[in-house]
Amino acid sequence: MKTTAILLLSCPDQKGIVAAISNFIFQHTGNILYAAQHTAQPENILFMRIEWDLDNFSIPRNEIRQAFIPLAERFKMKWAIRFSDYVPKVAVFVSSHIHCFHDLILRHRMGEFQAEIPLVISNHNDLKPIAEQYSLNFMHFPITPETKKKQEEKEIEELIKHNIDLVVLARYMRILSGNIVNLYKNRIINIHHSFLPAFAGGRPYQHAYERGVKIIGATSHYVTEDLDEGPIIAQDIIQITHRDSVEDMVLKGKDIERTVLAKAVRLHLANKILVYGSKTIVFD
Amino acid sequence: MKTTAILLLSCPDQKGIVAAISNFIFQHTGNILYAAQHTAQPENILFMRIEWDLDNFSIPRNEIRQAFIPLAERFKMKWAIRFSDYVPKVAVFVSSHIHCFHDLILRHRMGEFQAEIPLVISNHNDLKPIAEQYSLNFMHFPITPETKKKQEEKEIEELIKHNIDLVVLARYMRILSGNIVNLYKNRIINIHHSFLPAFAGGRPYQHAYERGVKIIGATSHYVTEDLDEGPIIAQDIIQITHRDSVEDMVLKGKDIERTVLAKAVRLHLANKILVYGSKTIVFD
Amino acid sequence: MKTTAILLLSCPDQKGIVAAISNFIFQHTGNILYAAQHTAQPENILFMRIEWDLDNFSIPRNEIRQAFIPLAERFKMKWAIRFSDYVPKVAVFVSSHIHCFHDLILRHRMGEFQAEIPLVISNHNDLKPIAEQYSLNFMHFPITPETKKKQEEKEIEELIKHNIDLVVLARYMRILSGNIVNLYKNRIINIHHSFLPAFAGGRPYQHAYERGVKIIGATSHYVTEDLDEGPIIAQDIIQITHRDSVEDMVLKGKDIERTVLAKAVRLHLANKILVYGSKTIVFD
Amino acid sequence: MKTTAILLLSCPDQKGIVAAISNFIFQHTGNILYAAQHTAQPENILFMRIEWDLDNFSIPRNEIRQAFIPLAERFKMKWAIRFSDYVPKVAVFVSSHIHCFHDLILRHRMGEFQAEIPLVISNHNDLKPIAEQYSLNFMHFPITPETKKKQEEKEIEELIKHNIDLVVLARYMRILSGNIVNLYKNRIINIHHSFLPAFAGGRPYQHAYERGVKIIGATSHYVTEDLDEGPIIAQDIIQITHRDSVEDMVLKGKDIERTVLAKAVRLHLANKILVYGSKTIVFD
Repeated sequence: MKTTAILLLSCPDQKGIVAAISNFIFQHTGNILYAAQHTAQPENILFMRIEWDLDNFSIPRNEIRQAFIPLAERFKMKWAIRFSDYVPKVAVFVSSHIHCFHDLILRHRMGEFQAEIPLVISNHNDLKPIAEQYSLNFMHFPITPETKKKQEEKEIEELIKHNIDLVVLARYMRILSGNIVNLYKNRIINIHHSFLPAFAGGRPYQHAYERGVKIIGATSHYVTEDLDEGPIIAQDIIQITHRDSVEDMVLKGKDIERTVLAKAVRLHLANKILVYGSKTIVFD
Repeated sequence: MKTTAILLLSCPDQKGIVAAISNFIFQHTGNILYAAQHTAQPENILFMRIEWDLDNFSIPRNEIRQAFIPLAERFKMKWAIRFSDYVPKVAVFVSSHIHCFHDLILRHRMGEFQAEIPLVISNHNDLKPIAEQYSLNFMHFPITPETKKKQEEKEIEELIKHNIDLVVLARYMRILSGNIVNLYKNRIINIHHSFLPAFAGGRPYQHAYERGVKIIGATSHYVTEDLDEGPIIAQDIIQITHRDSVEDMVLKGKDIERTVLAKAVRLHLANKILVYGSKTIVFD
Repeated sequence: MKTTAILLLSCPDQKGIVAAISNFIFQHTGNILYAAQHTAQPENILFMRIEWDLDNFSIPRNEIRQAFIPLAERFKMKWAIRFSDYVPKVAVFVSSHIHCFHDLILRHRMGEFQAEIPLVISNHNDLKPIAEQYSLNFMHFPITPETKKKQEEKEIEELIKHNIDLVVLARYMRILSGNIVNLYKNRIINIHHSFLPAFAGGRPYQHAYERGVKIIGATSHYVTEDLDEGPIIAQDIIQITHRDSVEDMVLKGKDIERTVLAKAVRLHLANKILVYGSKTIVFD
Repeated sequence: MKTTAILLLSCPDQKGIVAAISNFIFQHTGNILYAAQHTAQPENILFMRIEWDLDNFSIPRNEIRQAFIPLAERFKMKWAIRFSDYVPKVAVFVSSHIHCFHDLILRHRMGEFQAEIPLVISNHNDLKPIAEQYSLNFMHFPITPETKKKQEEKEIEELIKHNIDLVVLARYMRILSGNIVNLYKNRIINIHHSFLPAFAGGRPYQHAYERGVKIIGATSHYVTEDLDEGPIIAQDIIQITHRDSVEDMVLKGKDIERTVLAKAVRLHLANKILVYGSKTIVFD
């Protein structure tokens, strides 16, 4: 695996941006491995992800950001540069549902995610034995309406202490307050067990059953302060029939909850998602 | 193709129903070709579809209904008997969208539906040439808020005059009033261009675009007086990405609108749907 | 959960079979909960699965088989009766691939399968630590061409000793010889990582890549002596693109391998599969 | 709709290609609207599709090709330039199956394809009335083993006379000989009614039925001299069950045959496909 630099940017579209960026890379002897762009209309905003080989790149790695600033300012970019060998730190929040948590850990072990998981946080103790079976650092923060503020402050302390880059809510089943959400804007991924915007809020399978739908779904999204309203990253569905009880839906839904959450985490960790308002640009 | 009788029924579940019905058929030397049942819980209501060969069946066809009454009363059934060689009469309501209409006609021609289409009704004249190209009886009932009541009365007259069994709204884009809906209860099929209950009402693709969903869908359902709330028959979705504009969604959506509507019409014409409250039992 | 009896049968189709069976159940005060049938054409063979509540059933459980024999003989049935509270014993054969094994164990723990897993057999030691983490009985039978016969004999001994009902090859990656296959006819489930019959044999993702297909798949099937030719139970696919390398396919394929294998195991354990020649009847 | 130029190219990958091309466009005041690239490994060949606005582009349209030659030679490119306002001419070959033909014509009428259809060729007369209903130029070339060579020569004459850019085999059901195939290399699209490479050749639904698969599929591909071996453009499948007869498969298959063929035609007409050996790069 080559070490690469990944430039993520958005800016008002105009002539010459691609040329300017590709020249910047070429003049410093970088080889572009992957480039994707998208122009959102009617706003005319360009989104771009460009990845190049750092071998023989003439700018030392720790000076690339500085070197890119003039170009970024010329085109009024919002931008970030990431390096492919950086190992992000992920905190997983769980409740008492095991399937998404277990699935993430399994994928992590099989090498699907380039990440470390220094922290598992839960408001229950149910998954502690499993977390410890995997030698994970499990922290229990029981939350009641009275203790919520205080407990979330402690959680934030832990997130900061462990340099957490991404928070994954693996069926955490609790609403995070604004403090955490704002601190980790576009860095908290949730899995909701319905095809949003249908059946937002609690007990979506129950509501799907009552409505008599023929599909059920799952949606992974970034968390905002508005419940189940954040930018959607991935969605999938499965067909059901009149024979499926709520319990059957819960069972079948687990499979897509797992894959849809895993897909979102994988895309995020690979720096393939740009957020734009309430939407995502996914350069898959 | 054998001629068959199809019994559709629902009743409170209890011991002996299947035995009683299969005895009824066997004692009159009928051969069961297909049987399916479902018990809705917690209501404990049995739904059943049973189809048998009429060859050598000892009860004359026009006496079967009468002969079945004692059994039906014993188990407090809601029931209907259909015959496989009956050719239902379908009225298609269209507006100016061509794709669902064209698709239905093509399928009809290819023999996918056992039905006659004695009537095409529209509030526009746009599809008249196409309907006539297919030698269909196209009737134009322009509708304004002022004329709606009167025009619908005329439409009802035509539906009755042509002995219409099923009304298909092939992107009709207008709300039918209660008179028609009640007259054709569970016999009007609509196609809505979203995965209901998400994006009910107008302009679903626009709303899907604004929400930034990663799937779009289509839903066929029976029409009730509550817009887009009727019992769902079939649903399907396709994946989209940030690259898809509203126009792209409209284009891609057409494919699933066509197949989802056609599936519902095919199931209805084959007497494979039972309606239960706001839901359908589909014995596919 | 009610305790039920499940009758699985096949026989030449003729009039009165459904009536005879439903009478048998009704006369002994059983309540039919679920019934499904299928007639294979042109062979005219009836397949049936019928499930009834054992509460108040007037035949004692251990006499039901005996009581059913006259009926079975009258209609020349191949048949079996199962009881829903029986807990089947499953042996899982693994190699060094972790994902299917891990997934099965997770599902088992979450209660998706009603089964015990008294035995994990492998030709490698790689998964031993994981099996033991789950407190599973892991047995290592390294196999070379020279030792194959002998080792398989020992495996058979273990299968018999543990009263194994079902063998699951969770990416076992080795061909079982006829001895095991015949002993466990229609009771060994394999997962093959392609949409059979395409890419049978080794390295299917490599061959899929070389052919440039736009979908990859997975197939669960009963094992016969002809490699990858056994009756198919379930299949699924995912879309891929030119961007997917063989490694990407391996990664993406894991998700469907897991779900397709789990589906087959779930259906088998729920006594919902009948095998007919090289095909399966799945009463899902 | 803006008029754009579309550059399709492949060449050995090396540093500076993207920069060189984007500079070429920028220096002549073109605005890149869309760019996509892919590097095939291990061959290290770059594939690229880049589209830019021709408004204000400083090179006159008819001189762009000439102007690009030095760059193309420097990087040893295989390349083509297309213009978005060019309307390709499509010949549709049909046999007696109506569904794909009808579907293409419907889509064409609804504006899904930017193309003209000056020619419909068939070895049967069955679809003549429908073609003429749509005012299409239908030509009948009955083919026997004896007349094949001569008739195909006449067909080629017609293709050339009408400046045909793309040949679509809408279930033509006959093998074209090398003369046509080579003349229209990577410009003949066929629809095969299976998920290739499974069930290549004749009667795929029959073979699918016999094998007992749980999915059936359709594949659109460019035609080469090796039957059903050409580069695959698009594939899709649907789930089936043991209840589906061969006739049911034929019926269900029609839906995916139509969409998979239409997708391939749409991608080709939009200049989004590059062929590489036996594979396609699809910049969708």
